[in-house]
Amino acid sequence: MMPKPLSKTTTALHQGLPPGLMPTLRMMPMPSDANIHGDVFGGWIMSQVDIAGAIPAARRANGRVATIAVNSFLFKHPVFVGDLLSFYAEVVRVGNTSITVNVEVYAERNRLEAETVKVTEATLTYVATSEDRKPRQIPPLKSLTTPAADTAY
Amino acid sequence: MMPKPLSKTTTALHQGLPPGLMPTLRMMPMPSDANIHGDVFGGWIMSQVDIAGAIPAARRANGRVATIAVNSFLFKHPVFVGDLLSFYAEVVRVGNTSITVNVEVYAERNRLEAETVKVTEATLTYVATSEDRKPRQIPPLKSLTTPAADTAY
Amino acid sequence: MMPKPLSKTTTALHQGLPPGLMPTLRMMPMPSDANIHGDVFGGWIMSQVDIAGAIPAARRANGRVATIAVNSFLFKHPVFVGDLLSFYAEVVRVGNTSITVNVEVYAERNRLEAETVKVTEATLTYVATSEDRKPRQIPPLKSLTTPAADTAY
Amino acid sequence: MMPKPLSKTTTALHQGLPPGLMPTLRMMPMPSDANIHGDVFGGWIMSQVDIAGAIPAARRANGRVATIAVNSFLFKHPVFVGDLLSFYAEVVRVGNTSITVNVEVYAERNRLEAETVKVTEATLTYVATSEDRKPRQIPPLKSLTTPAADTAY
Amino acid sequence: MMPKPLSKTTTALHQGLPPGLMPTLRMMPMPSDANIHGDVFGGWIMSQVDIAGAIPAARRANGRVATIAVNSFLFKHPVFVGDLLSFYAEVVRVGNTSITVNVEVYAERNRLEAETVKVTEATLTYVATSEDRKPRQIPPLKSLTTPAADTAY
Amino acid sequence: MMPKPLSKTTTALHQGLPPGLMPTLRMMPMPSDANIHGDVFGGWIMSQVDIAGAIPAARRANGRVATIAVNSFLFKHPVFVGDLLSFYAEVVRVGNTSITVNVEVYAERNRLEAETVKVTEATLTYVATSEDRKPRQIPPLKSLTTPAADTAY
Repeated sequence: MMPKPLSKTTTALHQGLPPGLMPTLRMMPMPSDANIHGDVFGGWIMSQVDIAGAIPAARRANGRVATIAVNSFLFKHPVFVGDLLSFYAEVVRVGNTSITVNVEVYAERNRLEAETVKVTEATLTYVATSEDRKPRQIPPLKSLTTPAADTAY
Repeated sequence: MMPKPLSKTTTALHQGLPPGLMPTLRMMPMPSDANIHGDVFGGWIMSQVDIAGAIPAARRANGRVATIAVNSFLFKHPVFVGDLLSFYAEVVRVGNTSITVNVEVYAERNRLEAETVKVTEATLTYVATSEDRKPRQIPPLKSLTTPAADTAY
Repeated sequence: MMPKPLSKTTTALHQGLPPGLMPTLRMMPMPSDANIHGDVFGGWIMSQVDIAGAIPAARRANGRVATIAVNSFLFKHPVFVGDLLSFYAEVVRVGNTSITVNVEVYAERNRLEAETVKVTEATLTYVATSEDRKPRQIPPLKSLTTPAADTAY
Repeated sequence: MMPKPLSKTTTALHQGLPPGLMPTLRMMPMPSDANIHGDVFGGWIMSQVDIAGAIPAARRANGRVATIAVNSFLFKHPVFVGDLLSFYAEVVRVGNTSITVNVEVYAERNRLEAETVKVTEATLTYVATSEDRKPRQIPPLKSLTTPAADTAY
Repeated sequence: MMPKPLSKTTTALHQGLPPGLMPTLRMMPMPSDANIHGDVFGGWIMSQVDIAGAIPAARRANGRVATIAVNSFLFKHPVFVGDLLSFYAEVVRVGNTSITVNVEVYAERNRLEAETVKVTEATLTYVATSEDRKPRQIPPLKSLTTPAADTAY
Repeated sequence: MMPKPLSKTTTALHQGLPPGLMPTLRMMPMPSDANIHGDVFGGWIMSQVDIAGAIPAARRANGRVATIAVNSFLFKHPVFVGDLLSFYAEVVRVGNTSITVNVEVYAERNRLEAETVKVTEATLTYVATSEDRKPRQIPPLKSLTTPAADTAY
């Protein structure tokens, strides 16, 4: 059975977001996440990007993961209180014990006229860990039927 | 231009979620949102449902809204720390000054095997407000081209 | 021994609150609970109402309870940062495994002249749960001597 | 008109609390307010006591106040997540620009059998401040008709 | 080997702080820690002072401690969002089961010209506790070679 | 006048930390900053590193800055609730409108025997911004007398 595509109307309302993809996280920063100028703290965004990236990493690792590196992280535009943020996280590389994830963040602004901008791009690496916090082997993809399943979230 | 539909793989990974729809919010409750048993507080979920519902209400009202009523709210299953929650909010009725929104919440559980359950259903009413917090008329749908645009988010 | 009634002075300072009743919760929302207009989020109030209602429910159930429904919830007036809120929760119905609680919230405002307004009315239903989160029977009222003890908090 | 006294039943349920007095604050600490042993942080309690004391101080000062001293603060018993805390704050001294407040905190424990213990006693001093944070004179008690009104909250 | 002293430059940048001492805590209050006037809540500062004092107390007690008293606490100047706060905690007395700690807080202000002011002075007493929250004997100083080690942090 | 060096005792207690340097931030993560395993979230650490780096950047820029990039970020060891973290931030490059800062984080562990480990190393770039969030020129170092003042914090 084919998936039901996003309706025309829905798409019109989400212009500027990657079409046909499910965001990993989607949230609206609150006044308590902002500095006194009303801009959202870079640190708050980093924190949410870390959680977003950990979701497909933990799914691929079939268990607990820990962040070991941020390879790159770009803040392309400021984020404001009241922006609706969509986080898209995608596994881009799987090693023996580590998983690298790309995360992109888009902001939809409720200002004058609707506007969607890509605010952040980041790449993070997670390591699969055992109960005693030691690295462990990433399991093979036996239960997933297509190679694409490895990278899509 | 037609929207690119969700890919087969993506859909397979999100079985149990409403196909082809964009969640209004999507987030993962943290340990600090839970009680000592590891269950997420009902109040935390209510709080996020209120935010989710306010998003399409504010968009339809083209400005500030305030919650005036929760008409119904069902907790069908417990929510756990680490569940990935998707909130689907949809405008179901537009009055002179008020907007009624339906919100459904689904939990994807990273447990033994992936499982998706609808955990919450709610209906809330918001009122459009002016700067001095008085109710104001909801603007007509002149800038949106189809009636469907009224209800879809 | 008869309870010492509230003194005249105390009552004068709390005009507009239900006389002679102990509030279940009483608190002052902080700037971090508000939106950028200084109004307290509806979701924050819902969250506190849920906690207030759970207190007499857990006492009547003699143990753990979980919220299963919000039957109604009215926001009659906005709540501001700095309002002093009193939550009155009262058991209104006891079923086999569920307990329905009425919660009323009053705001005392430190503005120009003292003013007390009822800001919220809600009815919620909780279910008594066992360790494994299954519903369990509400125990009978053997240790409490009057029927009124069932409903007063 | 005489105030309606607290009912017998209500009093029975609140044995151990000061009879006939309205608590200034009443709240239940959450897991996120506790250390890893489940005890509530002393600092969290201090923080709430400071807010409780500021309420009658600000009312007596008829405006903004700032904490200038904690004169004494005793933690007599540990506080646990899930305790229901009642804070009683009372003005005990009024100077030219400063107001001293006594705060007592009682915990009701939902354990085995109901138990109420006084957990904290503190005395704090606040100063009335003007817009530019300078001390200002406390206004006289012209609008309140009895001396008792000065100290009761 | 002698400790490397703070460099001239570093000292110039920290004029007004106690020279040559390591602060126990050092942090910057955020907008969510402030009231609507932009001043940081006294309660937030108390809360951090309690944590600062517990650090040398727990180290001296070689284990868990609980706050039992605030002996004195002075707020000498207001604290603003964006101030950089340094907390200096020092053990000043060791009893059989209790430890008294002095805490001083300095604020460095990024305003017009750099300015450092002592904003808070406090003395708190902690008690060493066992697993069951009972007081326990403070261990002797056998593993530390000088008496001074008792009080310096 | 020469700065008073860190005392022998103090240095002994802080073995493993960079000698003679003032940490930019120093704090202890709380249970609410951790996941259900008691490890502190990577995102929480990123968030604090961002704040730490912004402090010398804002001082050097003599005003407001915004994070524009994380160039690298390594998590070398897990961080636990109760660790005492020291953040050392140092300006390493100044461009026309941007400032690059290196941040190192050390954890002192209150476990069995005292232990200090470097847990995190990061490099971030900030841009100096004007009131309207546009990049602005970094002012020259006229008021600081030595080149070293540029990089030390």
